[in-house]
Amino acid sequence: MKKDAKLVKNALGRRVPTVVNGIEQTPYKGVGRFEPTGRKQAPPVRSCRDYPADGDKRVASLEEALKKCGLRDGMVISSHHHFRNGDRVALRVLETAAKMGAKDLMWFPSASFPCHEPVIELMDKGVVHHIEGSMNGPLGRYCSHGKMRGMGVLRSHGGRWQAIQDGEVKIDIAIIAAPTADPFGNCDGSHGPSACGSLGFALADSIYAENVIVVTDNLVPFPCIPWQIQGNNVDYVVEVDSVGDPSKIVSGTTVITRSPDRQRIARQVAQMLRDCGIMREGFSFQAGAGGIALAFVTYLSAMMREAGIKARFVRGGSTKYLVEMLETGLTDYILDGQTFDLDGVRSIAEDPRHVPTSPFTSYNFHGKGNFASMVDAVVLGATEVDVDFNANVNTHSDGLLLHGIGGWQNCLTAGCTILAVPSFRDRIPVIVDQVTTVTGPGELIDVIATERGIAINPRRQDLLDALAGSDLPIRPIEEIKAEVEGFCGGPPQRARFTDKPVAVIKWVDGTVIDTVFQVEED
Amino acid sequence: MKKDAKLVKNALGRRVPTVVNGIEQTPYKGVGRFEPTGRKQAPPVRSCRDYPADGDKRVASLEEALKKCGLRDGMVISSHHHFRNGDRVALRVLETAAKMGAKDLMWFPSASFPCHEPVIELMDKGVVHHIEGSMNGPLGRYCSHGKMRGMGVLRSHGGRWQAIQDGEVKIDIAIIAAPTADPFGNCDGSHGPSACGSLGFALADSIYAENVIVVTDNLVPFPCIPWQIQGNNVDYVVEVDSVGDPSKIVSGTTVITRSPDRQRIARQVAQMLRDCGIMREGFSFQAGAGGIALAFVTYLSAMMREAGIKARFVRGGSTKYLVEMLETGLTDYILDGQTFDLDGVRSIAEDPRHVPTSPFTSYNFHGKGNFASMVDAVVLGATEVDVDFNANVNTHSDGLLLHGIGGWQNCLTAGCTILAVPSFRDRIPVIVDQVTTVTGPGELIDVIATERGIAINPRRQDLLDALAGSDLPIRPIEEIKAEVEGFCGGPPQRARFTDKPVAVIKWVDGTVIDTVFQVEED
Repeated sequence: MKKDAKLVKNALGRRVPTVVNGIEQTPYKGVGRFEPTGRKQAPPVRSCRDYPADGDKRVASLEEALKKCGLRDGMVISSHHHFRNGDRVALRVLETAAKMGAKDLMWFPSASFPCHEPVIELMDKGVVHHIEGSMNGPLGRYCSHGKMRGMGVLRSHGGRWQAIQDGEVKIDIAIIAAPTADPFGNCDGSHGPSACGSLGFALADSIYAENVIVVTDNLVPFPCIPWQIQGNNVDYVVEVDSVGDPSKIVSGTTVITRSPDRQRIARQVAQMLRDCGIMREGFSFQAGAGGIALAFVTYLSAMMREAGIKARFVRGGSTKYLVEMLETGLTDYILDGQTFDLDGVRSIAEDPRHVPTSPFTSYNFHGKGNFASMVDAVVLGATEVDVDFNANVNTHSDGLLLHGIGGWQNCLTAGCTILAVPSFRDRIPVIVDQVTTVTGPGELIDVIATERGIAINPRRQDLLDALAGSDLPIRPIEEIKAEVEGFCGGPPQRARFTDKPVAVIKWVDGTVIDTVFQVEED
Repeated sequence: MKKDAKLVKNALGRRVPTVVNGIEQTPYKGVGRFEPTGRKQAPPVRSCRDYPADGDKRVASLEEALKKCGLRDGMVISSHHHFRNGDRVALRVLETAAKMGAKDLMWFPSASFPCHEPVIELMDKGVVHHIEGSMNGPLGRYCSHGKMRGMGVLRSHGGRWQAIQDGEVKIDIAIIAAPTADPFGNCDGSHGPSACGSLGFALADSIYAENVIVVTDNLVPFPCIPWQIQGNNVDYVVEVDSVGDPSKIVSGTTVITRSPDRQRIARQVAQMLRDCGIMREGFSFQAGAGGIALAFVTYLSAMMREAGIKARFVRGGSTKYLVEMLETGLTDYILDGQTFDLDGVRSIAEDPRHVPTSPFTSYNFHGKGNFASMVDAVVLGATEVDVDFNANVNTHSDGLLLHGIGGWQNCLTAGCTILAVPSFRDRIPVIVDQVTTVTGPGELIDVIATERGIAINPRRQDLLDALAGSDLPIRPIEEIKAEVEGFCGGPPQRARFTDKPVAVIKWVDGTVIDTVFQVEED
């Protein structure tokens, strides 16, 4: 923490640093309270005179591309996570930079996964100074233990777009790993041996970065169609043997929960949407790829079919269950930010009603509206929720930072936000007095659905009224909490932290909603 | 002309003003000689807090939308020309602004047509100060007669993108006329009663303008798919009865020349491409929608079929002849900037291999390359050409400014640039000693094909060599010129101008390549 930084309380009463990685911060002010000023980030004007007239931007190696981009100490290198735990590009780029002698880089992935664990070694050696981006697993643990030189900055998908667009994060070199590309740099994610579907998380990087490198294992002659990333934003193209392990890029299949408790949550959430009238002709919803969310989709689909109701659109992360809805006429469109399984990849490649979206269209809060607030209902998860309906998706009750935000924060503006969570995990209650980390404020969370009952936020009297005659187990959240504590042996132990902030959680408008502190060693 | 402005000679020896409409200019320096600096135009950061959460941006009228955009004197109002001579939106906007009392507006259309002639009255009344944009017909004549208060600025399609992107023209209010739109502002040009195909000419406006208004006569529920223009860039949506006269928006059919002379030009150009080896497996070409260009496409198609050759892509303006090539397997893709007839509209709406492009992808010279330089051969027209291969597409030999540039300048970077022109029109020779206006420099023009012979630019010895054994009538340009002057009664009379500049022609890099002077009244 810089000398001039201090901790202040934000509008939620959370202690947040005033300076993060040398940049002054605005503490969270409340939903819709922060008014941005200024203009968008402006990348340099380039000229065709400096690019090959035949459009062939290939260079022989990653090293050559990085050299041509002027790689130097302290640069910001961005990457995207469409290859998930099968990614072979981001680490290779950082290791190449290490070989070239670079130090103190900031790695700015849209998310990191266990496959990126070797970046720990690069941080220990001084090659990478710190990471701003979701840290799933080992890197988050490293950060939580206070070992990263800079602070982690966690942003939602929309918040990452906002930070790039607003010039908060200036990307020096963007790395776009592409399942298909042409020598001009046009890229597509929906075809090729490493197909991952959409490339939307890399779009902001391609538009706003100073330099853009495309890395592909499937070069096709110009033009690569569709061009999810436009070659007109690309400086260099590098061919490699493999951009990723296809078996880890997408699941062959996505798996519905088999737990009877979780099945019950899913069924009751679907029933709630039906009974309160949200499930109506032309409605829309979003659900993720977790076991409960998938089960919810199958229950809701059955109810829609029975009632003869069609959605106008459903939002992905797409899975075979959403694709089935599209193909059997239960929805006009899938608006898809991320493709989770092979059925999703096939559909987005072939069906014009399965439309790739980006964090700009769907989630950017500093735009002229976005899709998220137009969705009628969204079903999400959480690691913890509290009696004020605040929720945490980043840390566990032991305080360890183990998950990214994804689109979670951005989705909270939907018409009805439902957190579908088991009431306890590993005998640790999920409903607590106060969440370890506030990822999303309770005023935006309408329903917490557990296997022991459904808690509706008292702010949503309209929902309570609409469900007055329903046979759903609607209960006060405190009551469910007490019941769970009863058989778990009380509330979970509070995590023990030092006073050293190791990461901040950004709200969708770029303000700081909470801080992750270093966990105390046992 | 401002007091501090003077005329200087540019690299082609043309006299150009140093200041245009109060803005300092760079004289043309030669092909690829101007090096841009600085950063792209940065529109203001907005926030979802200030836009309706349900995504419904409709307002009751154009007047209300203009008011909400803060319409005031001196603003820059942009529009696009996809509705061509059937447009009903641009004029209505300017007339609404007039009723609201606005003065001294700059109208910034991507092109104007005879249907916009009433803008003359608005200029006479002081509502519109001047026009920057292509002026086809009456408005160009008005400008040529020195009646416009400001100077006309003519830019190519790519030059218009460059000027907006580089911040040379700051659009206050962009008007997007859309054949289909949703209440969020997503727009599509390929469906609806006024379908025009692509909306690419409006893309820069939507991205960079301070305020964006969508006007549509075909509102659909969100989401409007495809979204050629993204609602996330749109402020207001206005519904009107009709955005245009469909019969004038696209031709029902495009018509091939019936003139035997022009047919011969078309056939010989096709033969030239075949004989010199440009027509080879995987090649590409672009041709416009003029009578000669269309005939060229049919001749070339026949030769390709005979030789068993397939193009990788053809560039539109699309017509039924390009669509036939796509549908009969003579090309993998149409990359289409503009849709000229109903077959083109149907194809771009239905066939994923018929891909809409924008001036950004195709023509912007201040990008990281563009498509134009990757095209193997392009067939264009001209009003005049000279013995140095310079060409004019803007003025006639009488000096009147009657045409825009379109993509013409941008296309000159193709591998082989062919101007297919009759050697005379109305008994006035087309080949002259020096063109009235230089729209494109001779060093970029490789071939001038007339019915009396084909002149190849001596700079292209490679082409001359490749065609050494051909039976094509390859002749020096001076020889063709002399022959035509012989039966036309000498060279055309030189136009007579005053010393007052009334418009400038911008080169693709934003420098001034030539000036149009006021014509002397008889």
